[in-house]
Amino acid sequence: MDNIQTQALVVKESICRKNIKTMAEKCRKSNVIFRPHFKTHQSLKVGKWFKDEGVEKIAVSSFTMAQYFANDEWNDIMIAFPFNPREIDALNRLSEKINVSILLAGNETLPLLTKELRNNIDFYVKIDVGSKRAGYDPDSVVSIENLLDLAYMNNKLRFRGFVAHAGHFYMAKRVSEIRTQYQKCVKSLQMLKNYFSRSYSDIIISWGDTPSCTVIDNFEDVDEIRPGNFVYYDFMQLKAGICKSGDIALAVAAPVVAKYIDRYEVVIYGGAIHLSKDFVLVNKQPKWGMIVFFTKNGWQFPKLPAYVKKLYQEHGIIRMKHDDFFSVNVGDLIGVIPVHSCLAVSHLKDNYHFV
Amino acid sequence: MDNIQTQALVVKESICRKNIKTMAEKCRKSNVIFRPHFKTHQSLKVGKWFKDEGVEKIAVSSFTMAQYFANDEWNDIMIAFPFNPREIDALNRLSEKINVSILLAGNETLPLLTKELRNNIDFYVKIDVGSKRAGYDPDSVVSIENLLDLAYMNNKLRFRGFVAHAGHFYMAKRVSEIRTQYQKCVKSLQMLKNYFSRSYSDIIISWGDTPSCTVIDNFEDVDEIRPGNFVYYDFMQLKAGICKSGDIALAVAAPVVAKYIDRYEVVIYGGAIHLSKDFVLVNKQPKWGMIVFFTKNGWQFPKLPAYVKKLYQEHGIIRMKHDDFFSVNVGDLIGVIPVHSCLAVSHLKDNYHFV
Repeated sequence: MDNIQTQALVVKESICRKNIKTMAEKCRKSNVIFRPHFKTHQSLKVGKWFKDEGVEKIAVSSFTMAQYFANDEWNDIMIAFPFNPREIDALNRLSEKINVSILLAGNETLPLLTKELRNNIDFYVKIDVGSKRAGYDPDSVVSIENLLDLAYMNNKLRFRGFVAHAGHFYMAKRVSEIRTQYQKCVKSLQMLKNYFSRSYSDIIISWGDTPSCTVIDNFEDVDEIRPGNFVYYDFMQLKAGICKSGDIALAVAAPVVAKYIDRYEVVIYGGAIHLSKDFVLVNKQPKWGMIVFFTKNGWQFPKLPAYVKKLYQEHGIIRMKHDDFFSVNVGDLIGVIPVHSCLAVSHLKDNYHFV
Repeated sequence: MDNIQTQALVVKESICRKNIKTMAEKCRKSNVIFRPHFKTHQSLKVGKWFKDEGVEKIAVSSFTMAQYFANDEWNDIMIAFPFNPREIDALNRLSEKINVSILLAGNETLPLLTKELRNNIDFYVKIDVGSKRAGYDPDSVVSIENLLDLAYMNNKLRFRGFVAHAGHFYMAKRVSEIRTQYQKCVKSLQMLKNYFSRSYSDIIISWGDTPSCTVIDNFEDVDEIRPGNFVYYDFMQLKAGICKSGDIALAVAAPVVAKYIDRYEVVIYGGAIHLSKDFVLVNKQPKWGMIVFFTKNGWQFPKLPAYVKKLYQEHGIIRMKHDDFFSVNVGDLIGVIPVHSCLAVSHLKDNYHFV
């Protein structure tokens, strides 16, 4: 850790591997495909820990990420984002080397795909199961049928099934709510699968999101899951009751650059460009991260919780209890459990440190 | 623009040059040093536009940025962030080549500087003029005296004056409030300067923040100004009444990837990792950016304003008026005036496009 000059992502290997193993075992038990979303870690090293658990298929959220992992011998990659027609060249290049699948969240890109696609690719139809972000409503069977009929005329495009990501589960107030909603969402996906299975025999349901993949034990209603965040978890998942503090495998290390005894606050060199401006409400106040103290082999939480109470572009302000305040010196590294680990990783992925 | 596949920063050169010229002329008229903060643009090309206006000194917020501009023949750079002792090597390397100045926001790093500093550097004492972020209280003359006495024993450290950044001005409700507060803050800095001028004859007051540097016309009370954001401005500055829409020189281009007529919403490939999670409240609702439509030589605002109403990691959701909705197609680029241009630049600085 002495070599960390500014900010770094600090990963507890044992916890991270445990998170991966737990999810992989759950998939084996439920007999579903495990296609983890790699945007959460964006690390070749963590990727290898997934390979150790037998994982062969992954999801990513950009062609840049896909290329990065394809170069490390990942051969089955889903670009889990509505296909962006401006990246047709990137798609053609990537699909020369590996199995690529894309998502269609409407029929607008089909003419371009028909005209310019050079290699065989798989596609999934994105279903909006309630977050109102992107995808077909599960009731819009006729529109989906139209999409599939158009796609069927292009023999390079193979329909593989339905993809859903319950983004609204991140807002769930209770874990029981996630379980109830999951059943409802999955039922609507199964109706689609049953209906379209008459014409497409080998289609699947691919299901996302860490909250439900963590709290649901049996996935026999779907065929594939694509959680990402569970590899590290974060402050948001802790606050939502999805994980425990001992499941968190990622902290951002940031140097203390100033201390002010009149307000018991320390200033860290860690701001919005490192942690992101995502916040969690604690006692109605926004907090941009939870404080931990680094130890020889990881970190520990202070007896009373401390938070990033203000966040600027490069500065973070932490109010501390008296004892903790005096135990910290300018130049020390402080750990911040980020609100959203995927965002912190997207900012700091070039500075990984494993313990 | 046809070459933009994902996201890009689109800059209107004429507006940007006008913003630079306006500020430079104001500085000449007030006879103050113009030391613009380059973190807002992080672009060598935009840097040259400042050189065209006679600018020779700059501020940045990291050693990485300093190194980047030092390589392009910028020879007087302030690292406008409380000195982080873990970067002493970076400081020694940079100060071999160019004039570097650092900020001290406490005395904790002086022992290390005394021991390990290899070259002469300038330092400024950071004064907290009200944002409670970092720096000495203007009243804590004795503490500042102690700092300066300690620093004086190190003949490589030269005290250059006081630096202040009124971060709280970004929260000002009215422009008149900024003017009143500015007078108050500057008075406290002048008292410090007068007092310490007895022992240090050539010290200055260096003043920051775009809101005050934009609305104040005469800077005769300070010696240097360091605004950054004014080079592009943004949605936040527009909302605060600091700039007009015609002063905004930066938009983020993002592709439309889906459209949903039932809710008159388009989905763009532009999310938190491109725009940042900073928001502005409009009619009590958070908005993560303001929509513009690209034209041949720039962009125009729609007749009725449209906003990014939801922001995910990679997705942005825009609700549009009917006519605008039908004028936009999947695959088109849409422009987003970012809430905070510095943050958008920090995410997308490798993808600049000038018009």
